[in-house]
Amino acid sequence: MKHDRNIYLSNMALNEAIELYTSACARGEISLEDEVLQTVEALGRVTAEPVFASLSAPWFNASAMDGIAVNAASTYEASERRPVVLTKGKDYIIVDTGDPILDPWDAVIMVEDLVDLSEEQVEIRAAVSPWENVRPVGEDIVAGELILPAYHRITPIDLGALLSGGVNAVKVLKKPRVAILPTGTEIIEPGTPMEMGKIIESNSRVFEGTVIQCGGEPIRLAPVADDYPLLVETVKKAAESSDMVIIVAGSSAGTEDFTSRIVAELGEVYVHGIALKPGKPAILGKIGHAPVIGLPGYPVSSWVVFDTIVKPLLYTMQHQRPLQRPTAEAVLSRRLVSSLKNLEVVRVKLGKVGDKLIATPLNRGAGVTMSLVRADGLLEIPQSSEGFEAGTKVPVRLLRPIEEIENTVVVIGSHDLVIDLLADQIHTKWPDSGLSSAHVGSLGGVMAIVKGEAHMAPIHLLDETAGQYNMSYVKKLFPTFKGYLIRGVKRTQGLMLPKGNPKGVQGLEDLTRVDIRFVNRQRGSGTRLLLDHNLKIRNMDSEGIQGYDREMTTHMAVASAVASGTADVGLGVRSAAALTGLDFIPVGDEAYDFLVAESHIQALPVKRAIEALRSEAFKNKVLALGGYGVENCGEVITIE
Amino acid sequence: MKHDRNIYLSNMALNEAIELYTSACARGEISLEDEVLQTVEALGRVTAEPVFASLSAPWFNASAMDGIAVNAASTYEASERRPVVLTKGKDYIIVDTGDPILDPWDAVIMVEDLVDLSEEQVEIRAAVSPWENVRPVGEDIVAGELILPAYHRITPIDLGALLSGGVNAVKVLKKPRVAILPTGTEIIEPGTPMEMGKIIESNSRVFEGTVIQCGGEPIRLAPVADDYPLLVETVKKAAESSDMVIIVAGSSAGTEDFTSRIVAELGEVYVHGIALKPGKPAILGKIGHAPVIGLPGYPVSSWVVFDTIVKPLLYTMQHQRPLQRPTAEAVLSRRLVSSLKNLEVVRVKLGKVGDKLIATPLNRGAGVTMSLVRADGLLEIPQSSEGFEAGTKVPVRLLRPIEEIENTVVVIGSHDLVIDLLADQIHTKWPDSGLSSAHVGSLGGVMAIVKGEAHMAPIHLLDETAGQYNMSYVKKLFPTFKGYLIRGVKRTQGLMLPKGNPKGVQGLEDLTRVDIRFVNRQRGSGTRLLLDHNLKIRNMDSEGIQGYDREMTTHMAVASAVASGTADVGLGVRSAAALTGLDFIPVGDEAYDFLVAESHIQALPVKRAIEALRSEAFKNKVLALGGYGVENCGEVITIE
Repeated sequence: MKHDRNIYLSNMALNEAIELYTSACARGEISLEDEVLQTVEALGRVTAEPVFASLSAPWFNASAMDGIAVNAASTYEASERRPVVLTKGKDYIIVDTGDPILDPWDAVIMVEDLVDLSEEQVEIRAAVSPWENVRPVGEDIVAGELILPAYHRITPIDLGALLSGGVNAVKVLKKPRVAILPTGTEIIEPGTPMEMGKIIESNSRVFEGTVIQCGGEPIRLAPVADDYPLLVETVKKAAESSDMVIIVAGSSAGTEDFTSRIVAELGEVYVHGIALKPGKPAILGKIGHAPVIGLPGYPVSSWVVFDTIVKPLLYTMQHQRPLQRPTAEAVLSRRLVSSLKNLEVVRVKLGKVGDKLIATPLNRGAGVTMSLVRADGLLEIPQSSEGFEAGTKVPVRLLRPIEEIENTVVVIGSHDLVIDLLADQIHTKWPDSGLSSAHVGSLGGVMAIVKGEAHMAPIHLLDETAGQYNMSYVKKLFPTFKGYLIRGVKRTQGLMLPKGNPKGVQGLEDLTRVDIRFVNRQRGSGTRLLLDHNLKIRNMDSEGIQGYDREMTTHMAVASAVASGTADVGLGVRSAAALTGLDFIPVGDEAYDFLVAESHIQALPVKRAIEALRSEAFKNKVLALGGYGVENCGEVITIE
Repeated sequence: MKHDRNIYLSNMALNEAIELYTSACARGEISLEDEVLQTVEALGRVTAEPVFASLSAPWFNASAMDGIAVNAASTYEASERRPVVLTKGKDYIIVDTGDPILDPWDAVIMVEDLVDLSEEQVEIRAAVSPWENVRPVGEDIVAGELILPAYHRITPIDLGALLSGGVNAVKVLKKPRVAILPTGTEIIEPGTPMEMGKIIESNSRVFEGTVIQCGGEPIRLAPVADDYPLLVETVKKAAESSDMVIIVAGSSAGTEDFTSRIVAELGEVYVHGIALKPGKPAILGKIGHAPVIGLPGYPVSSWVVFDTIVKPLLYTMQHQRPLQRPTAEAVLSRRLVSSLKNLEVVRVKLGKVGDKLIATPLNRGAGVTMSLVRADGLLEIPQSSEGFEAGTKVPVRLLRPIEEIENTVVVIGSHDLVIDLLADQIHTKWPDSGLSSAHVGSLGGVMAIVKGEAHMAPIHLLDETAGQYNMSYVKKLFPTFKGYLIRGVKRTQGLMLPKGNPKGVQGLEDLTRVDIRFVNRQRGSGTRLLLDHNLKIRNMDSEGIQGYDREMTTHMAVASAVASGTADVGLGVRSAAALTGLDFIPVGDEAYDFLVAESHIQALPVKRAIEALRSEAFKNKVLALGGYGVENCGEVITIE
């Protein structure tokens, strides 16, 4: 073993770590320099000092109307009964809105109130007061007046006020320069030919984007391998020439140790190891004036640390209020167990079903980027909590606007690739709508419908006695259930095998062969039921199947296990086999339909989903996948 | 008169105009072309089609831990009682997190579970199952799986998923190219020497910024004078080479007519004149496929039309849900009267006083850009409504985060320049705080405190009998009031006169001279009371003062009227005279203090304001203005 591995990190509470680090950074005066920019270039920048107008707006008394400029005294006698006639040049001049009103004129009569007598004369029937219909100098801005306070982020309308106020250049804070250093011998740049063990470097690109969104200037450095002297040199230079340094660790522990040692050697490490999941092995340090943060290598871990600690620091450096996401109260659809060892950040899908906002936890793995891509919100399980029971009301920080979430159709149940196509179809047709899905299997889907936690449950449940799919199964399970079945697709399930079927699998009977490693679906999934049904009619014992306990939650995950050689066979839909280049032996056709409760059939998201199911665009995409039938797709059948 | 002026516009209801125009634009297929970008360049862009993974992530079975890779079968016998010894090379290899797990290995034991016996041998006390502690191929993303749907705006984390999924280039919508054409003979570019009648062109810069924020690409064209043939040519070219054209009208009616005629000549005008205030004279048309919008010249009018009509269209072109600002229910602090002729958009300041969100209307002038700069929210008065009484609950669309508004100290009462300095001081010290002020005069301020609509009321109220400021006045007015007086500044009021005092004004006695035009403050302001008190003790009649009825609401507005020559004298504070370069004859010193009700003295925004008042930084800035005393500034005195 490598005895120099530092496997023990501290486990500092998140709040404590943030407080310690923030005050350490404040001691180092993490202030930004300022610079003078042309106002027209200053959108989104932060003022470094209060900005005062150098010119009044308007800067001359200006007509507020189209009409004629007069001297108010010459109109005092005018009335309905005794109109006054004014002569051009002598008594008035024609003015447009914005024209200057200069001596001897001191008021404007608008064009609608004039009776034209000739090109040279008008009649008026009412008097005007001095300065009536005149925008006085400084009506908008008075020279010397404050336009913007210090530390204000300049908006488009601010640009208008600054320019109108004669401010053509403005002193702003320089953007915080954030050096981002990807490290690790195993990382390669996107587009490089793949080599076993190499990982595409993508974390630094995520932080580049986030730094831009926080108003900073990212400086992505070339990736550096796990070479201690080279890393020291690179980090030292980065700390000298930027306002903050982000070291993106390779995923190996070796690299991580390097980071901590390097920061300690060049500056100071305040925190190494936070009671935060994912995100524990973070390093918070400082070199000179520059905060230096070592992020863990797993993408979700590093994102959580960046979001929780680095982002607020970036805002604070710019004297801006750290971004606070709006929160909403949601009902948890599944039990969540968490350790007392740490605060956990769980990514959740959200959907409004009836009057409840339902939160469904996504994959909690630190390496599952897609859990963040798909997330609608973040749920924190405090360090002091062991988790929440299903049905608990929990606060969720929103990652998307709540209006968008409210238009989302919540689909919980069996997995099929057509769900992605349906999601795409809905979002394409209605940009303010979407589809949120959780793969819990058909039975889990039925339960979600019964508990009012989903709009639609995709199911494929074979009633063994009736030999029929879905309708009779649901009626047997919940005889009093009132609702509808929306016809989805016909699909073919079968054995997925490596290309060329090297082990010569012929059918389900081969699953008990000693040289065959199976990969299964989770309990409650329709595919698992289909397998068990088929084992039963063949009098086969699941005990004899190697890998029967290895459970995956999607067809694609099963296909992937077979494709990568960790299993020899799995059961799933033809489209998944086709997409992953596998051989396929059909086992049976089935109906993949959507269960909807009576109370939700009129909900807007459900109506849109049905419209999308019926669309030719959707059906064509499904057919293009292969292995599906789309007859009756979108048909609504009452369950009675 | 110019008889070719088109002074009559239609008055189409806003919703009707939007519906008509949106469907007209949809008919013209206002779709954007797409382009293929490197993924690393695609932040913030909108996907033009669904994006599927071309590589699984991880793409090999990878160790999820630091530890040793083993064949699970070799560990089955291990237990606490009967440890198993494994030999390096034969039974295991050392792996770091992320290392590939290849045949014959199929599981990982983490380093924490190992007992090192030697460099070559470890002892284990528990078995592992096949694929335990191994991230399977596709754990994050399976090749072929959907990463992003079509028409999705790419976020930083999406970049990570795309790159990990082997997607190095992505098809996105081209940014909508928005040509912005400033027009008008009277406009000049910022920085150009000023000439009487010329206006600094700033609207186009506001829309440049807004287009960027909406994901578009602004193309600001060089300003064009009111020259019909030149305008026709410029608009034609712009419509041919961009996805949308914004014509920023000069403020003259002539130009506006040009715009409508030009659009009608080159394409079609759907709407000219909307029942919207400000914003009525908008033009909605189309030339070829490009929507062409003629905006009114007044900055607030054009902003409202852009915000209400152009922005949603820009989002729709990108298949994005139009931005919807969060709304909050607020209590209106003042009566608002509006015409049945149109829907009115009123800019409001907001503040949380006690448990009520208070909305105070800002200047409703179409030319007052600062009303938008200062606004916290927008209040719509429907066309069917004649307005709202004070105290009505109204929905306000928020322009700032509600948390920021909740930390804002609401200051309603008398105006002084030190309020701007106090606002700046608070925001500098606490980036999540601010100061919101409304200038309603001292008496208005006292009423706001009594009604619970403000945290602090700046007042300077002379009790004529006691010869004392503020304390005794408030006690006489509201004998049962419980609260505090926070000491503010001592300041000098006096006559503000043009530089050199050309009319030889000596004192208040001169106000009744026939050659003197006075400019007054509004009723209820302390300065007006000060004037009236002084007139009274001099036995002077206000009837004899020319301009006594001309009311301004701030010292700066009065100073500006004198500086611009529309008045010969005004009464106000020394600092305003100094800032505008006026002469000053002192009339008296007074105390400008802050009234606070007992129930709000402990509110965070008030505590912060008091701390800011007491700070040396604030006092120094006040002293630098000139004409102020800061002794006891921030001292809290109980009213009893």
